[in-house]
Amino acid sequence: MIIVLKNQTAKSDIDLFINMLQNRGLGVHVSTGVDTTIIGLVGDTSNMNEESFKAFDIVKTVMRVQEPYKMANRKFHPDNTEIKIQSPDGEITIGTDLQKNNKRNFTIMAGPCSVESEEQIISVAKEVKASGARFLRGGAFKPRTSPYAFQGMGCSGIDLLLAAKKETGLPIVTELMAIKQLELFDNIDIIQIGARNMQNFDLLKELGHCKKPILLKRGLANTAKELLMSAEYIMSSGNENVILCERGIRSFDNFTRNVLDLAVIPYLKKVSHLPVIVDPSHSTGLSWMVEPMSKAALACGADGILVEVHNCPECALCDGEQSITPNQFDKLVKSLQQYAKIENMVI
Amino acid sequence: MIIVLKNQTAKSDIDLFINMLQNRGLGVHVSTGVDTTIIGLVGDTSNMNEESFKAFDIVKTVMRVQEPYKMANRKFHPDNTEIKIQSPDGEITIGTDLQKNNKRNFTIMAGPCSVESEEQIISVAKEVKASGARFLRGGAFKPRTSPYAFQGMGCSGIDLLLAAKKETGLPIVTELMAIKQLELFDNIDIIQIGARNMQNFDLLKELGHCKKPILLKRGLANTAKELLMSAEYIMSSGNENVILCERGIRSFDNFTRNVLDLAVIPYLKKVSHLPVIVDPSHSTGLSWMVEPMSKAALACGADGILVEVHNCPECALCDGEQSITPNQFDKLVKSLQQYAKIENMVI
Amino acid sequence: MIIVLKNQTAKSDIDLFINMLQNRGLGVHVSTGVDTTIIGLVGDTSNMNEESFKAFDIVKTVMRVQEPYKMANRKFHPDNTEIKIQSPDGEITIGTDLQKNNKRNFTIMAGPCSVESEEQIISVAKEVKASGARFLRGGAFKPRTSPYAFQGMGCSGIDLLLAAKKETGLPIVTELMAIKQLELFDNIDIIQIGARNMQNFDLLKELGHCKKPILLKRGLANTAKELLMSAEYIMSSGNENVILCERGIRSFDNFTRNVLDLAVIPYLKKVSHLPVIVDPSHSTGLSWMVEPMSKAALACGADGILVEVHNCPECALCDGEQSITPNQFDKLVKSLQQYAKIENMVI
Amino acid sequence: MIIVLKNQTAKSDIDLFINMLQNRGLGVHVSTGVDTTIIGLVGDTSNMNEESFKAFDIVKTVMRVQEPYKMANRKFHPDNTEIKIQSPDGEITIGTDLQKNNKRNFTIMAGPCSVESEEQIISVAKEVKASGARFLRGGAFKPRTSPYAFQGMGCSGIDLLLAAKKETGLPIVTELMAIKQLELFDNIDIIQIGARNMQNFDLLKELGHCKKPILLKRGLANTAKELLMSAEYIMSSGNENVILCERGIRSFDNFTRNVLDLAVIPYLKKVSHLPVIVDPSHSTGLSWMVEPMSKAALACGADGILVEVHNCPECALCDGEQSITPNQFDKLVKSLQQYAKIENMVI
Repeated sequence: MIIVLKNQTAKSDIDLFINMLQNRGLGVHVSTGVDTTIIGLVGDTSNMNEESFKAFDIVKTVMRVQEPYKMANRKFHPDNTEIKIQSPDGEITIGTDLQKNNKRNFTIMAGPCSVESEEQIISVAKEVKASGARFLRGGAFKPRTSPYAFQGMGCSGIDLLLAAKKETGLPIVTELMAIKQLELFDNIDIIQIGARNMQNFDLLKELGHCKKPILLKRGLANTAKELLMSAEYIMSSGNENVILCERGIRSFDNFTRNVLDLAVIPYLKKVSHLPVIVDPSHSTGLSWMVEPMSKAALACGADGILVEVHNCPECALCDGEQSITPNQFDKLVKSLQQYAKIENMVI
Repeated sequence: MIIVLKNQTAKSDIDLFINMLQNRGLGVHVSTGVDTTIIGLVGDTSNMNEESFKAFDIVKTVMRVQEPYKMANRKFHPDNTEIKIQSPDGEITIGTDLQKNNKRNFTIMAGPCSVESEEQIISVAKEVKASGARFLRGGAFKPRTSPYAFQGMGCSGIDLLLAAKKETGLPIVTELMAIKQLELFDNIDIIQIGARNMQNFDLLKELGHCKKPILLKRGLANTAKELLMSAEYIMSSGNENVILCERGIRSFDNFTRNVLDLAVIPYLKKVSHLPVIVDPSHSTGLSWMVEPMSKAALACGADGILVEVHNCPECALCDGEQSITPNQFDKLVKSLQQYAKIENMVI
Repeated sequence: MIIVLKNQTAKSDIDLFINMLQNRGLGVHVSTGVDTTIIGLVGDTSNMNEESFKAFDIVKTVMRVQEPYKMANRKFHPDNTEIKIQSPDGEITIGTDLQKNNKRNFTIMAGPCSVESEEQIISVAKEVKASGARFLRGGAFKPRTSPYAFQGMGCSGIDLLLAAKKETGLPIVTELMAIKQLELFDNIDIIQIGARNMQNFDLLKELGHCKKPILLKRGLANTAKELLMSAEYIMSSGNENVILCERGIRSFDNFTRNVLDLAVIPYLKKVSHLPVIVDPSHSTGLSWMVEPMSKAALACGADGILVEVHNCPECALCDGEQSITPNQFDKLVKSLQQYAKIENMVI
Repeated sequence: MIIVLKNQTAKSDIDLFINMLQNRGLGVHVSTGVDTTIIGLVGDTSNMNEESFKAFDIVKTVMRVQEPYKMANRKFHPDNTEIKIQSPDGEITIGTDLQKNNKRNFTIMAGPCSVESEEQIISVAKEVKASGARFLRGGAFKPRTSPYAFQGMGCSGIDLLLAAKKETGLPIVTELMAIKQLELFDNIDIIQIGARNMQNFDLLKELGHCKKPILLKRGLANTAKELLMSAEYIMSSGNENVILCERGIRSFDNFTRNVLDLAVIPYLKKVSHLPVIVDPSHSTGLSWMVEPMSKAALACGADGILVEVHNCPECALCDGEQSITPNQFDKLVKSLQQYAKIENMVI
C-alpha cells in the first residue's frame, strides 16, 4: 500500500501518522520529495482497507499495490488448479494443470433451468449426455425476483436430479440458496452459488467448511476482484475447490439480458489459478446467442460452459427464452469440438 | 400483460397459443390489426414472467402493464404506512399517514459504522441523541469484501448496542447478515438488511415471519422495482413493517463510492406507501458530502436519513472516511431543522 | 505522477527507465523500498497519460496525484467564477464570488424543449419571466437519436428566440450543435453544448475562440473529471466563461430516463471554481419529478437550474412528458424561494 | 406503436386522443378490454417518439413494435451488405453477401494508434501487410480527453498515411473528427468515426453526402439500437457504405479499460445487414488481451478486427499499453487463420 500525503503537511503530523502505522504492526518506508511525502507500507496489508486511511486529513490518496487475495492468487500458486469429480464413468477433471497434462479440459455442463418432472429431467439428461455433456445442471431451488413466481421444486427437485444421476451417470451441479439446504446436497457433486449470493458472506464461510466443489457465479454488479475476494472467503475457510463463472453484468443496454464480459476470462486466468467457466444462457437470455457466445468463450480461454437445455423451451416454467433444445445442443457441441481440436482441448 | 405476435403468424398457431394461455387460467382478449395481433391477458399475472412468453417463436414482444408488486403498491394501499417503535421516551413513528397527521416525520438514525467498544458506542449514542437522533445505528455484524478485514464484534457488539440503548433510551437499528443471527436480535428495534443481501430471498422470507421493522437497503445494481419486489417477499411472508433505503448504486464514475440516486425517493413515494430513507454516508463515502446530500434527501421527500457518526473517524475500524464527528452531526441536524420547518416536517 | 515498478526489476532496467523519463523533461524522485521501487515525477505532468507508462514491462502500476485540469481547478483559482450577462433589465450574474457578495445567486433558466412557433415561445417567455426565470431556454437545433424525428426549427428558431428576447428582455440560452451554426449565435447570450457533444473536441476548441458563456452539459457516460477536462478545452483555448451542467448519467435502471447524479454538485464546487447548474427535466424525463429534484439541487449547492416549461406539454413536438406547465413552474419558483431564503441565496 | 391507456379513462378523453392521432396521419386500431384500452398505431411511426405520448395524462405506457431504423434494417434488406474498396492489389470486400459467395471475408485492419513519423508508419505498414492485414490504420487526428495531451500530427499525419499506402498498397482507415477535415480525406479509403462522435449528428449527416465507406464506432454508453440509428443518419443522407464497430462500453469495473460487449456481434448481424467489426485494442486497453479477444470476435461472427500494432509500444505517443508488436500480430493472424478455416472464412 502506498500513501501519498498532502503537500505542506507539517513534519509533526507526518511523525504522528507514521507512529500510528507502526503501531498497527506495519513496516513503513518514507520517501520525501520536493513537495510530496510518500509512505510505502511493508508487510501484509490484506486486512487493511485503503479507504480507511483517507479519513486522515493529511492523506491525499492511497494506492494498493498488492492484490488483496492470496489463496486465489496465481502468484502464490503458479499452476492451474484442477477440480476432480468422481462419476460412474470415471474421474472428471475441471481445469487443467499444464505441468501434468498437455491437453486442456473443456467441460460442458448442461440441463434445464429448473427441474420440473422426473420425465423431463431424465430425458434431458440422457440427451445432453449423448451429445457430450459431462455434468447435468438443473435448478431445484430457484432465486426469483418475485415472491409470486415459481420458486423451484425444492427437495423433491433434488431427488429427481439424483434419480437422473443414477439413470445416466452424469454428476450433478445445482444451486444452493441457503445454509439450511446444505444437508440435502450430500450427493450433489458441485454446489452452485448464484450471482445474487456472491457476496452472501455467511454462506461463503459455511461453504468453506464442506469439501465439495463450489461453482461461484459473478454478481451482476461485481468486479472481477470482488469475485476473487468471494472465492477467497470460501478458500480461506478451508475449501479450495472453487470454480469461477462469468454470467453477465448489468449495463444500460437491454438487447441481451446482461452483458457477457468475456474479457474477464483471460483476466481471471492470468491473475488466478482457479478454473473459469461461462454461462452463455443466463448472460444473454436468448437461445440463439448460446452457440456464438459459447464458441467465443472457448476461443478466449474458458475451461467450460454451463448451458440451459430444455426439451420444450416453450413449456419451461422459467427462462424458456434462453434454453436451447437437445438438437441445438448437439449441434453446439459438434461445433465446439472443431474449436477444441485447434486449441488442443478435450471436451 | 400485453403480448404482440409477429406479423403473418398463422391462424392455427395463434389459436394454439391462446389455448395454452387459457389453460394457465388467464382471461385472453385478442385484438387483430392489419398485420399485428395483440393479446391482452386479463387476471392476476403477478406470478408470470414476461420473459417466458418470449420462448414462443410467434411472439414478437411482451409488455407488462400491471406492476408485479401488490402489497407494497400504493394502488392497493393509498395511505402512507407508518412504522411505530416503542422507546423509553415514547412511541416513535417512521413515515407519516397524512390522513392522520399534518406534520410529516423526518427520522434521523445515527451512529458509528461499527460498534468498537462500550465507551465508543455509549459516548456516540449520548452525543447523537442530544443533537436530535431518534435511533442509534451501529454494526455488530459487518459485510466486508475481504475475509481478512474486520468482520465486526458479532454477539458482543449486539450486547454493547443494547447497553447503549439502556443508557440513552435510543432504540437500535443494526444489520443482520444471516438467519441464524436472528435469535440475537430479540431486543433490537429495527433489523437492517444490507445492499448485498437485498436479493437473499431465503433471508427475506424468514424476515417475513418476524414482526420487527425491517430496514431494507437497495442493492448496488438493483432497480427500484426489484427493491419493491424484495419488500414484497418480506410483506407477503407476513411482515408489513418495511422501510426502504437508498444507499447508492454502481456506475462508471468513482468520485463518490456509489451514485446516490435521489430521484428514487419521489419515485418510491409515488408508487409505494412504504417509508423511504436515505444513507448519505455509504452512498458517497465522503464525510464532507453528508450534509449537502442529507439536505437534498429531505428536499426531495425522504422520510429520514441513516448517518454515520464517529467520535474519532481517524480511529474507526472501518469506513472512517465517510463518518462525521458529533459536532458535524449537531450542525447537520440544525440545518435540517430549518428545511423541516418549510416542509412542515418534525425531526 | 507516481510509478510503482514490479518487484525484482533489474537495476539496469530501472536506470534506463529513469533516463527516458528525464529525457522527457521531468524531474524524477526515486524511492527504493525493500522489494518495491517507487518513482515520483516532479513537474507538469498534465500532458502525460498515466496509461502510456503501463506499456513498459517493468511498471506495475501508475497513480496520478495532480489533477490533470488547471484552469478549471480551484487550487489555482480559489474564488468562485462569476459569469455576467447583460440584459435590458440589467446585469445578471451566474455563480457568486463570496469574497465580493454575501448572497449567492440561484439562476433559473426556463422555456420549452423546442421552439415551435412565435406565439408559443413568446407566451412561454412572458410567463416564465413573470414567475422568476432569468433566462429563456429553447432549442432551435435539436439533437435527436433518429434522423426521422423533428430536428428543430433551425435558423428560424433562433429568430423566434431573439424575437422573444426583444419582447421580454430575457436573455437566451440555446444549443449549438456544429461550428457552422456559430454565425447565427451572435445575439444569443449563452451557448449550450449538449451531452452528446461534451467530447466533440474540435467544437470545444472553437468555442474557446469566442467570448460567449458556454453552458457545458455532462455526457451520459462521462465522469466528473472528464467534464472538467472538456471545460479545460474551452478555457485553455481562450474562453473562461464556462457553466457546468449535470443532466443525468446512464445506468441499468429506467424508472427515470437517466440517473441524476446530484453528488456531483458538491464535488464540482469543491474541486472547481466554475458555476454548476442542474437540469431536472432531461435527467428525469418526468414532469412530476422536476419540483422535488430542483429543490434537492438547490439544497446540495447548485448555482441554478435549467427547466423545461411548455404551455401545452401534450402538444410539444418533443419531450412533452418532461415539461411542466407555466402554472407548475410558478409554484416551483415559489417553493425554491423558501429554500433560497434559508441558504441566503437570491433567485 | 402500441399505446395502453389508464384504467377508467373516460370515453370522451379516448375519443379526443384518437382524433389527435388520426390528425397526425396515423391509422388507429382500438381494442377495448375489460378495464384496459389498447391503441395500435398503423403506418410509419419511425419519426415518432414513444416518449412524447407519455405527456398525455391518460396514457399508461407505450411500446414500440417496429424498429425505428429502416435502411440499416435486415427486414428491408435481407442480404448482407458488401463494402468494396479498390486497392493496388485488387478489390477488397468487407462483409459478405452469402447469396453470391460461400466463403465469408474476415478483414484485418492494423497499424499504430497514432501516426508518429514516416519511418514508423511505413515500417509498421510493411510488417502488418506481410502478416495478412488488408488495411493500414493509424490516427492523424486524435480525440484526447485532455487538451494538453498529444493531439495527433494532423494534416501531415494524413500525408504520411498516404505515403505508406503508396509504398505498400494498403488502403487506409483513419479517424475524422470534424467536417472541415473532410477535404483532407480525398485519398483515404475508409473514414473512421470515433466513439465520442457517434452521436455528432451534424457530422453524420455530412458523411451521408460523401460516398466513402464509414467505419462507425459504438459510443461508450450507447445502445446497439442507437448505433443503428446513427448508421441510419448516414444512410438516410445518401451513403449506405457503413461498417459498424464494437469497441467496448463503460461499466463499473476497470480491469479492462472498457467492457467488450461481444454479444452485440450476433445481435447486429441478426437485425442489420451491415458488416460488423471489433476493436480488441481500445476495448480492453491491454495488449495481452488482443489475441484471445480477437479469436472470440471471429468465433461469434465478426466480419473483421481493427488492431493496434506498434513497432515499439513503449515509445508510442499514445496508447502504448494496448498495442501489440508486429511479431505478436503475426502470431495473432496465424491463430485466426486456423479459426477462419473452420468457419469457412478467408482472411
